[in-house]
Amino acid sequence: MVIFLDKDAPDEKIQEIIDKIRELGFSVQKSEGQNQTVIGVGGIKPEYDLKPISLIEGVSKVLGISEPYVFAGREFKQTDTVVQIGDVKIGGEEVVIFAGPCAVESEEQIFNIAGQIAKAGAKILRGGAYKPRTSPYSFQGLGEQGLKLIRQAADQNNLLVITEILESSQIDLIGKYTDIFQVGARNMHNYPLLKELGKIDKPVMLKRGWSATIDELLMSAEYILAGGNMRVILCERGIRTFEPSTRNTFDVSAIPVVHQKSHLPIIADPSHATGFRDKVIPVSRAAIAAGADGLMIEVHHNPQKALSDGPQALLPDQLMQMMTEIRAIAKAIGRTI
Amino acid sequence: MVIFLDKDAPDEKIQEIIDKIRELGFSVQKSEGQNQTVIGVGGIKPEYDLKPISLIEGVSKVLGISEPYVFAGREFKQTDTVVQIGDVKIGGEEVVIFAGPCAVESEEQIFNIAGQIAKAGAKILRGGAYKPRTSPYSFQGLGEQGLKLIRQAADQNNLLVITEILESSQIDLIGKYTDIFQVGARNMHNYPLLKELGKIDKPVMLKRGWSATIDELLMSAEYILAGGNMRVILCERGIRTFEPSTRNTFDVSAIPVVHQKSHLPIIADPSHATGFRDKVIPVSRAAIAAGADGLMIEVHHNPQKALSDGPQALLPDQLMQMMTEIRAIAKAIGRTI
Amino acid sequence: MVIFLDKDAPDEKIQEIIDKIRELGFSVQKSEGQNQTVIGVGGIKPEYDLKPISLIEGVSKVLGISEPYVFAGREFKQTDTVVQIGDVKIGGEEVVIFAGPCAVESEEQIFNIAGQIAKAGAKILRGGAYKPRTSPYSFQGLGEQGLKLIRQAADQNNLLVITEILESSQIDLIGKYTDIFQVGARNMHNYPLLKELGKIDKPVMLKRGWSATIDELLMSAEYILAGGNMRVILCERGIRTFEPSTRNTFDVSAIPVVHQKSHLPIIADPSHATGFRDKVIPVSRAAIAAGADGLMIEVHHNPQKALSDGPQALLPDQLMQMMTEIRAIAKAIGRTI
Amino acid sequence: MVIFLDKDAPDEKIQEIIDKIRELGFSVQKSEGQNQTVIGVGGIKPEYDLKPISLIEGVSKVLGISEPYVFAGREFKQTDTVVQIGDVKIGGEEVVIFAGPCAVESEEQIFNIAGQIAKAGAKILRGGAYKPRTSPYSFQGLGEQGLKLIRQAADQNNLLVITEILESSQIDLIGKYTDIFQVGARNMHNYPLLKELGKIDKPVMLKRGWSATIDELLMSAEYILAGGNMRVILCERGIRTFEPSTRNTFDVSAIPVVHQKSHLPIIADPSHATGFRDKVIPVSRAAIAAGADGLMIEVHHNPQKALSDGPQALLPDQLMQMMTEIRAIAKAIGRTI
Repeated sequence: MVIFLDKDAPDEKIQEIIDKIRELGFSVQKSEGQNQTVIGVGGIKPEYDLKPISLIEGVSKVLGISEPYVFAGREFKQTDTVVQIGDVKIGGEEVVIFAGPCAVESEEQIFNIAGQIAKAGAKILRGGAYKPRTSPYSFQGLGEQGLKLIRQAADQNNLLVITEILESSQIDLIGKYTDIFQVGARNMHNYPLLKELGKIDKPVMLKRGWSATIDELLMSAEYILAGGNMRVILCERGIRTFEPSTRNTFDVSAIPVVHQKSHLPIIADPSHATGFRDKVIPVSRAAIAAGADGLMIEVHHNPQKALSDGPQALLPDQLMQMMTEIRAIAKAIGRTI
Repeated sequence: MVIFLDKDAPDEKIQEIIDKIRELGFSVQKSEGQNQTVIGVGGIKPEYDLKPISLIEGVSKVLGISEPYVFAGREFKQTDTVVQIGDVKIGGEEVVIFAGPCAVESEEQIFNIAGQIAKAGAKILRGGAYKPRTSPYSFQGLGEQGLKLIRQAADQNNLLVITEILESSQIDLIGKYTDIFQVGARNMHNYPLLKELGKIDKPVMLKRGWSATIDELLMSAEYILAGGNMRVILCERGIRTFEPSTRNTFDVSAIPVVHQKSHLPIIADPSHATGFRDKVIPVSRAAIAAGADGLMIEVHHNPQKALSDGPQALLPDQLMQMMTEIRAIAKAIGRTI
Repeated sequence: MVIFLDKDAPDEKIQEIIDKIRELGFSVQKSEGQNQTVIGVGGIKPEYDLKPISLIEGVSKVLGISEPYVFAGREFKQTDTVVQIGDVKIGGEEVVIFAGPCAVESEEQIFNIAGQIAKAGAKILRGGAYKPRTSPYSFQGLGEQGLKLIRQAADQNNLLVITEILESSQIDLIGKYTDIFQVGARNMHNYPLLKELGKIDKPVMLKRGWSATIDELLMSAEYILAGGNMRVILCERGIRTFEPSTRNTFDVSAIPVVHQKSHLPIIADPSHATGFRDKVIPVSRAAIAAGADGLMIEVHHNPQKALSDGPQALLPDQLMQMMTEIRAIAKAIGRTI
Repeated sequence: MVIFLDKDAPDEKIQEIIDKIRELGFSVQKSEGQNQTVIGVGGIKPEYDLKPISLIEGVSKVLGISEPYVFAGREFKQTDTVVQIGDVKIGGEEVVIFAGPCAVESEEQIFNIAGQIAKAGAKILRGGAYKPRTSPYSFQGLGEQGLKLIRQAADQNNLLVITEILESSQIDLIGKYTDIFQVGARNMHNYPLLKELGKIDKPVMLKRGWSATIDELLMSAEYILAGGNMRVILCERGIRTFEPSTRNTFDVSAIPVVHQKSHLPIIADPSHATGFRDKVIPVSRAAIAAGADGLMIEVHHNPQKALSDGPQALLPDQLMQMMTEIRAIAKAIGRTI
């Protein structure tokens, strides 16, 4: 349910309305519209009688909504959400580049790569310290040592850190080191984790599960938003289809679909989507042209020796080349990189 | 890697070999073959030199294996695994019926249903106390109160309990009440959870993710097996396809494929696969005919009022009818129910 | 649109009504219900005013229908359609076995296999003379010589013939030799071919396209039925999914779904669905248990030398074994083979 | 098989070699490389002994190839194929726009739209006269009358014509009116049709089947190429997946994959891929950015009244806006529109 308040409703009135609805047991979030304050209310069943709420003083309109999510939807918030961390803004005019290795492997590796991606113009350093791997015998990450290294490498190059979290018990530890929590495709349906991430004060990047619909992605985002954490960034990373020539099928239409249905920013991960280095650049260009708010690119200075996902990592030089190409495309559609 | 020992290798020799390999940092499990002891070793990379192990006294043959899993594979264990709990055996001649509501909703509900399914011949009572729901606003389960109720209802009717676990922090609590841990399709890739379930002494039923391949299902099972817990039951519950007339597409071929690739038992969940009550019975018959070791069936005495998944729940009378039909089919292929 | 006539409407009255509707430009078919004659009318748009038809004398009820097909639906015809050719009935109590090689390769081959499948109890000999192959360089069939051979081999063994047609220009030629026209999965959307097959007086077996929904299959059947040829047999042969361990994923639920939505018989083709000999028998058992009206099984006496699809062909001995198993299952659900 | 000739092999020598290989029963095509003539030979089985061919005088190297297609592959022809019709070149520096209605509906409609798309800068007018429709009761096209109208409308506006062919018996009739034959997604596997199109002297645009892999698309192209018609244009139009928010999932990666595997040009059809007008523009931008050689866009001046596919047709004004956006993107990657 979405509640539109009188244009001149004073702050204490708004708070009073929010308190009343919370007492009824629902999640509530406020969204500042252009002329009007809007209040989203999560968890209201269709059969619920909206009349008592519409009668509260200061309420101008009550809107039952058609989607199963409230806070993730455009009906609740019509302006695009911009997630700001320091002076990096995701979802604004600038397209933001996240880059780095699949996994933090060593001090030499992460510092080398961090330096290169900073030079290329990336703003956020990616790298896993806890890796969810299909086989229990694959490299599972360096753990806290990896977190320390990525933090140091980022700080030295004036970058932000994004790293993956696998379960809610890791929130405090990983939170000490990261600027953004990454929830991977395998955990898009890990609701206990999403609920806990809804209670914290750090941005979360939520990847689409490889066989999740866009509505399911928004419903998973809703778990975080309903808890009060409104800084959610979505990520399209390819879906599972029958086509074998790429690892997954990058669903480029998901970008305009998300922008229509939701106010949340969405970035693209062409590295995981395609699985092959030589497809990363054309698909990155396509994502930017379709309106993506950022790119997450795997980069490795020595991909043949990478402990995971080497074949899809760009070389630093290729990242440079890619930056040139996507900068021109961003400009063509009125954005910057 | 799989190691075949000399036929007359004494127990202390076997233990000595196991200890040596564990010292090298690998997971080890023993499998008693018909004439020979077999030792599976997980985590060995293809490039690893197997010669030192082949030279250990008592080792007759060392076999590098083609699959990315060791303990889940037929090469490690050729006889079918039978998971026994009390006097219920899953994976043997008898086909075992798991039945019950999607979620425990009330004392009246769970006792009513438990009585009916016991009368029909089911052996295991299913029912969720913690429900992973796509929407944060859907019913999320009764929690520990639900666990207590399902335990009592099962005990009163001489049934075993299976219930779902969502994250590893719940192992102790749920373990107090359940006989079998259920890992749902959404958590098939939740590796931290699988690792912890590998360390406990209770059977685990692992559902196939709705877009997981059979090899990925076996690799997830490997996470549990590599930890030492060999009592894993697999479950086919339908995969996501383009066909809209059923909720998912029940992959009946997965049953013979798993039986060929693995020694683990596999049961079928036609309720979640089809999503419609009138399709549950024919698909249950098909699963039994294809060789399934059990069925998990949703049953509700009042499906219109069910808090989740009502449209796919059988009425108790329909369960009775189904039992008659599948008994005849089980008999036709040399099994019993 | 479906029109129910007065119970005692005389034949000339019925004909008069049919003529009137045909004059309006619609397709018309008659279906004899238990107590009442029903007339299906194809091609009527939802906005069409049904009143003039409801006012025709002898019309008791006019029913706008919810599905996009009329003659393929249960609303038009509630009793199961039985397609009879000689004394073989498809869609009745007996489950009918179609068997034979993928392609007719030589006189020796087709006579050898025909003899074996007749002995096993199959009623219909399959074998392609014109093969639609993904590569232009694969064996494309013997052409008319193949048609002659399969006809002779069938006649000598008291079998019927089914063989594939690729385009409408082949109707006369193939019609000289075959008892049933087979439309393959690749041609399910070949509407010019379907329209022509609607005008002839021979049964058509229509295979589901490997990415067609069940409703699309019924809509393709409608092309044939609307032309006046009511002897259509459907065939489930697996759909394309992400699972690589079988060639396609056999959609066993399609059998009860078709039986619910349509009166047409449906058979199963586990050979093409699974692609592997050792999966054909369990999946055949499953199809029968789910209610299939027949099976189409590839059989070859020397599969290693088969010019196409050898790995999925059963040996004649395996066909014998399969017949024993499926006979027991058919009996368990009240049918015969 | 691909044969590289001596650099200075004289023309009569080349013809001699080609004749010799044709006598052996294989398809042969010549490709002029930068320094060297290359001869592709289709239909040679892996076990074929290549030695006799390598011994022919003038042959410098014989290459068995890894793909199941020869003439469609980069090994046979390394330079991009440019399909030229009049002064329109598809596959060169310029990106070519195909636009028009789904179906030709009336003189007023096709002339109106033709005028608008010509003004916007499109070069080729699309419009179906024979429509393959899922339902037999949907509008099936105006037939030859439609062909006449589209030809006239194109001529008046200095446009080329592309229109769809459904079966080989239509080649002569449609060939009288069209510049390019369109083979729709439903007919990608219609091999008799493809074979006949291989014998004619007009370009063919071949659409990817909605569940065909890219290799299967290239194999279908091979049917045309092996017949001697080398003017084939491919088209990505979306594949069938589980995602419901677009009609199909536009596989943007297919563009760089085709460009890597094949020398044939590939265009994109965002109208059929997405199914919704407001997604056509961003997906068109993405296709151009990924390197598509052209776009096929449905345009209608009155989409609410369109007899087919109205919801996905752009209005003429939207086409204008799209042209502006994609022109900037084409320029950013060094191409023109």
